[in-house]
Amino acid sequence: MSETIIVPKGLYGVAVSETGIAKSTSDGTLTYRGYSVEDLFENSSFEETAFLILYGRLPSKKELLSFSSALKTNARVPEQIYGIMKNLRKDAHPMDVLRTAVSALGANEHRLSSEEQKQSLIAKMPALVANCYRITNGMDTIDPDHDLDTAANLLYMISGGRPEKFDAWAFERELILYMEHDLNASAFAVRVIASTLADVYAACTGGIAALKGPLHGGANEAAIEMLLKFKSPDEAAIRIQEMLARGEKIMGFGHRIYKTRDPRAQLSKQMLKNLLKEKKKEETMYELCDAVEKKMWELKKLPANLDFYAAPTFYTLGIPIEVYTPIFAASRIVGWVSHYNEQLQDNKLFRPDAIYTGPNKLDYVSMDKRS
Amino acid sequence: MSETIIVPKGLYGVAVSETGIAKSTSDGTLTYRGYSVEDLFENSSFEETAFLILYGRLPSKKELLSFSSALKTNARVPEQIYGIMKNLRKDAHPMDVLRTAVSALGANEHRLSSEEQKQSLIAKMPALVANCYRITNGMDTIDPDHDLDTAANLLYMISGGRPEKFDAWAFERELILYMEHDLNASAFAVRVIASTLADVYAACTGGIAALKGPLHGGANEAAIEMLLKFKSPDEAAIRIQEMLARGEKIMGFGHRIYKTRDPRAQLSKQMLKNLLKEKKKEETMYELCDAVEKKMWELKKLPANLDFYAAPTFYTLGIPIEVYTPIFAASRIVGWVSHYNEQLQDNKLFRPDAIYTGPNKLDYVSMDKRS
Repeated sequence: MSETIIVPKGLYGVAVSETGIAKSTSDGTLTYRGYSVEDLFENSSFEETAFLILYGRLPSKKELLSFSSALKTNARVPEQIYGIMKNLRKDAHPMDVLRTAVSALGANEHRLSSEEQKQSLIAKMPALVANCYRITNGMDTIDPDHDLDTAANLLYMISGGRPEKFDAWAFERELILYMEHDLNASAFAVRVIASTLADVYAACTGGIAALKGPLHGGANEAAIEMLLKFKSPDEAAIRIQEMLARGEKIMGFGHRIYKTRDPRAQLSKQMLKNLLKEKKKEETMYELCDAVEKKMWELKKLPANLDFYAAPTFYTLGIPIEVYTPIFAASRIVGWVSHYNEQLQDNKLFRPDAIYTGPNKLDYVSMDKRS
Repeated sequence: MSETIIVPKGLYGVAVSETGIAKSTSDGTLTYRGYSVEDLFENSSFEETAFLILYGRLPSKKELLSFSSALKTNARVPEQIYGIMKNLRKDAHPMDVLRTAVSALGANEHRLSSEEQKQSLIAKMPALVANCYRITNGMDTIDPDHDLDTAANLLYMISGGRPEKFDAWAFERELILYMEHDLNASAFAVRVIASTLADVYAACTGGIAALKGPLHGGANEAAIEMLLKFKSPDEAAIRIQEMLARGEKIMGFGHRIYKTRDPRAQLSKQMLKNLLKEKKKEETMYELCDAVEKKMWELKKLPANLDFYAAPTFYTLGIPIEVYTPIFAASRIVGWVSHYNEQLQDNKLFRPDAIYTGPNKLDYVSMDKRS
């Protein structure tokens, strides 16, 4: 028997695969397929970035039109799936409803080709995400508006009204930042499931299951809940100091990769400022965030991560807090499907070892002789 | 930045965690919590083995009664969940229906305590498994019979009739063999999802998603489909040789851990022989299996694994082939929940690295300048 390799817990620092999709570095850079997230944030659309992440290159105008058109054609969710979502308890968490809906979609679409399945799943995620929120709030479901692109459509289906142009643009920037982040826990879950040759719905159901966890996707909701409790930047700074003194975890800070800055957080911070200005709102939310960020760096040397600044941006856009994690999934689905594809290009079943620490060679004792 | 550790693909031979649950060795031994699978196969019940795997020791009589009673009390699946399963397409794969049902159960039971959730999920799996088969075949759902133990109950709900005592006993032996097998792909998916602090339904939904893959749980169905095509042991031997010459994969052979013998396959093989005798059936199926096993060892030095012998045993018990993988899940749920518990005892989020192989520092080119 060959020797067992022992690695750090959580596979921290362990390269379990190759990837050509995204690259993040500890000094605070992120690229998708070689393009900096700053460039994409400034110039690219949801559809264009999704094409890039999925196919490895920026699309031509013709390719982009064809890709966007396919998303629109496949965006409507069958009434049968909404029926299943409506049959769940009204107090269910939207992420549980979303996970069930994606699993159900997979059960119903198993006869499609693998390519059709991926297209259908990505195209339907915005409607699934918006309506998992609507259904759990007793609202009518809304179908996508064929005239709107992905980001505007998602915002429209959540709010029920056509979004302002600047709002849709700002929201689209956040979705671009959330779209992919190499081997985080959900993408890794997707790859482990994909390695059994299960279909893309099975793998992404696992991705959604992982994203629900408070140590992963749930952080943006926790971040805004905290921010809303602070009345002023000074109070925020004092309260953070107190919370740290009590040993409490401050959500939205620290990252397994980024040690000094999360490039997505800084883009999102600037977006928050612009958005408040555009909406002629007071800068209080921005100042609160900035005060917390400075205090966290001063006391803990932890940088704000994307969740910390995406959450107040979503909030300023009027988006209900409970749908922040599902929105994360609506964008990250692109990354998950890309990891699914990449895993299958040169697949080997994930089948790790473990160090056995339990007892050995115990004799079975019949029931009447047990103490 | 600390150095990246590069490990074999599929984490082959890489110990990603400690475990005290099961231990399998390359020379063909398997223990659950220190007890040999041979001893448990001979002496133990489903409930007793489940208690052992979950809690780390054999139960006292009182503990076993209390555990069994809790399973029975929680075994009925709410009509609402069946409603969701019935709303899926009739041609859905039972594993997709099962995955959706477990996800839906999680959406509805999120207010239970973590302990209650685990108990509910394990207790309801037999009814979910049997009825995912019944519903996709247009049959009425069946509730568990309070007088029957887990194995007999599962067989009863699948067939619709009370099983013979020997059949229930034989079936229970197979379930014991399927109950746990350290860090296979599904248990690993469960642990990755658990590490985000997602709940047990989320984690086990991911386990079911992984188990569906043909490289994992789907093998027992493929094994029996092949066996049923052979008329005689001589023909089987010739056909296997031909299939190998054509480069075809023979399902039910080879194992990532067991290189010379799978102890579960050998127990299951003996069970198949006894079962055919008990049922006064010809030994053809046994002889077919034996001929294939011998030929595979002669030509490929690959041992038969559990799937290869569990499948003909299920077949001899009159169980429809499409429910073999769901049955696997009904038993393995015990192992999954144990891995969920163990992961959370000393948790660290799974967040591996990858070797980046894509392009670097590409300049964004505006759409009109793309070739």
